[in-house]
Amino acid sequence: MEPGPPGSSGPVEPGPCLSGQRGADHAASASLQSAAGTEPGRHSLAVAAVLPAGGCGERMGVPTPKQFCPILERPLISYTLQALERVCWIKDIVVAVTGENMEVMKSIIQKYQHKRISLVEAGVTRHRSIFSGLKALAEDQLNSKLSKPEVVIIHDAVRPFVEEDVLLKVVTAAKEHGCTDYDLEFGTECLQLALKYCRTKAKLVEGSPDLWKVTYKRDLYAAESIIKEIISQETCVVMDSKEDNKHVGHLLEEVLKSELNHVKVTSEALCHAGRHLQQIILDQCYNFVCVNVMTSDFQETQKLLSMLEESNLSILYPVVVVSVHFLDFKLVPPSQKMENLMQIKEFSKKVKERNILLYGLLISYPQDEQKLQESLRQGAIIIASLVKERNSGLIGQLLIA
Amino acid sequence: MEPGPPGSSGPVEPGPCLSGQRGADHAASASLQSAAGTEPGRHSLAVAAVLPAGGCGERMGVPTPKQFCPILERPLISYTLQALERVCWIKDIVVAVTGENMEVMKSIIQKYQHKRISLVEAGVTRHRSIFSGLKALAEDQLNSKLSKPEVVIIHDAVRPFVEEDVLLKVVTAAKEHGCTDYDLEFGTECLQLALKYCRTKAKLVEGSPDLWKVTYKRDLYAAESIIKEIISQETCVVMDSKEDNKHVGHLLEEVLKSELNHVKVTSEALCHAGRHLQQIILDQCYNFVCVNVMTSDFQETQKLLSMLEESNLSILYPVVVVSVHFLDFKLVPPSQKMENLMQIKEFSKKVKERNILLYGLLISYPQDEQKLQESLRQGAIIIASLVKERNSGLIGQLLIA
Repeated sequence: MEPGPPGSSGPVEPGPCLSGQRGADHAASASLQSAAGTEPGRHSLAVAAVLPAGGCGERMGVPTPKQFCPILERPLISYTLQALERVCWIKDIVVAVTGENMEVMKSIIQKYQHKRISLVEAGVTRHRSIFSGLKALAEDQLNSKLSKPEVVIIHDAVRPFVEEDVLLKVVTAAKEHGCTDYDLEFGTECLQLALKYCRTKAKLVEGSPDLWKVTYKRDLYAAESIIKEIISQETCVVMDSKEDNKHVGHLLEEVLKSELNHVKVTSEALCHAGRHLQQIILDQCYNFVCVNVMTSDFQETQKLLSMLEESNLSILYPVVVVSVHFLDFKLVPPSQKMENLMQIKEFSKKVKERNILLYGLLISYPQDEQKLQESLRQGAIIIASLVKERNSGLIGQLLIA
Repeated sequence: MEPGPPGSSGPVEPGPCLSGQRGADHAASASLQSAAGTEPGRHSLAVAAVLPAGGCGERMGVPTPKQFCPILERPLISYTLQALERVCWIKDIVVAVTGENMEVMKSIIQKYQHKRISLVEAGVTRHRSIFSGLKALAEDQLNSKLSKPEVVIIHDAVRPFVEEDVLLKVVTAAKEHGCTDYDLEFGTECLQLALKYCRTKAKLVEGSPDLWKVTYKRDLYAAESIIKEIISQETCVVMDSKEDNKHVGHLLEEVLKSELNHVKVTSEALCHAGRHLQQIILDQCYNFVCVNVMTSDFQETQKLLSMLEESNLSILYPVVVVSVHFLDFKLVPPSQKMENLMQIKEFSKKVKERNILLYGLLISYPQDEQKLQESLRQGAIIIASLVKERNSGLIGQLLIA
């Protein structure tokens, strides 16, 4: 099927189709606006992607093939799948993996709930793997759940930061130039292969610096830091009271705002506006500071943890929750309150299974205004560290500011 | 001056000349053995290096020029200087910086105690900067403290992981091929410039994958992770008793060995063998676990901190010290001991000024053997996290295992 004429009334795809997605998805869509500006007409165009993932990563210097190396405990290829998957106009994603990694790949798809993925067995070379993927898409089998695509995007499994606008460029170019080999900027034989064996369209276009490939161990380090940075952009402060007695929570919120650059702080009374908090969770905020003022235990933090567990927020990224408590160390020795707060260790073990990193923070609350500011500032530094590092070795610790 | 004939009795340079250096220096000398194998004869050859560092780092996406971007709070260029400086046969290192960064550069040299460095003003292009550096070396001024070199290495200020064997290759090639432009593998006009304006020898040779350039922000992240990994290779366990009562310290040592892969654990009784510990510090171990069994306070940790402060170990890298204490939580409530241990916060602030990161760790010591193993394992996980992350936001915390 050829794309219809301009102005025809087909569905509005390809073209950006995000809704209610932000936060971590920015990894793959930082240039969405520009993509929207170059929308290639409003036509229905069947697009699929093929990911050759049969490599063994010999340059990485680690025994695991690089596409399966963990970043924040999740395999690299899952990040790449996530980036493609969120582009709703890519109908099918075919991943070519070796026979020995087939089961690993299946379990990754299941654990991270990837959709629209089909697996084929990789060939002995990258080109043969691409061929296998294209063949699966081209075959017109009755039992096949794959729809025959008009454009196929061939994408490395180890380029997790692909943006929608680059993918859109690929599709636009394929549509404009058909299967010619015009403007083959990073041309490899993959394209020739696609042209030769399949009657589908294929073309390579120039990417952005973000479209880099994880090749060496240092690239894994860089990818981890970038992902950590992306999911640390926003922090939600949850308070256990609406108006009364919330003074100190708001003071902390103010200090957090000044301590953490480019971090959006959202204050939210859990008991009064659960719906609002639900929206924040849906919007993919991965960091929560739960201020417990009204009670001396973890009542509010536990409510928040339940909400987070019910949502599937932590499937893709570890969620940080800091349970904050206040105490005037002059009036009550911290040890007394600490005894009570020690149970955070048990909570943290339980929620770690759901990929939630729980820490406790006891902030000194002296009468002196200046000293209070100082302990709030210390608290903000600790919160910033926990959000930034996402250190699973320190969960369940009760930190003191 | 031309290099003397083979077999002449000049000093043994160029050629590797490390002694008593390991640990972090491996960053710059991972392939020393191979370098030793290709030692270019035993001749005195005057070698200098020129570092063009006048760039503004527009690709980095940060306002600071990339050579001044901090990695573990130390500017990138200081790591590059360290890598060159430790090659004792490089007699002079000339850095070309812009006028506006001259004072910053001077303070970096002073703070990190760099030696054999001269500064010249950078030109408007990289080539002009190199020219300025070469000119300073070529000029035969009476007042100049620089010796006229026979070989000049031109090295990017933003390639911190240069290895001695690569530098040796440069010098060997220059010696063998003179100034011809033979085998100009990564040739840029820099070489032509050097040939044209100076009567010194210059040549570019192929580097290794480790010789990568910090260009993008992701490269800074990668560099930080690599440096953290390098300085986390070795951990020294210090105990406060020689034979008696040291049981639990040794148990911890064993668990640490099994928990931390590729980490050398050195047990050392502080009071009996200070000289041995001095050697470990001289050998550049950047991680210390101080086990306090005999006393309930920080006596041993304080001794260790004094030794570290007297050494200059923490000038280049932050040193991690974990002060470990044991307690049977069944017999004594942890809060009681914690009250006493809270003073670690004040110590940590003081030693942070000297680039020492101090943390406290209270390990539960139950009678039950299996439970003890579990709490030791928890303790080892926490120690591993602290060593790996080197998080300055969490100094002075008393963590509980």
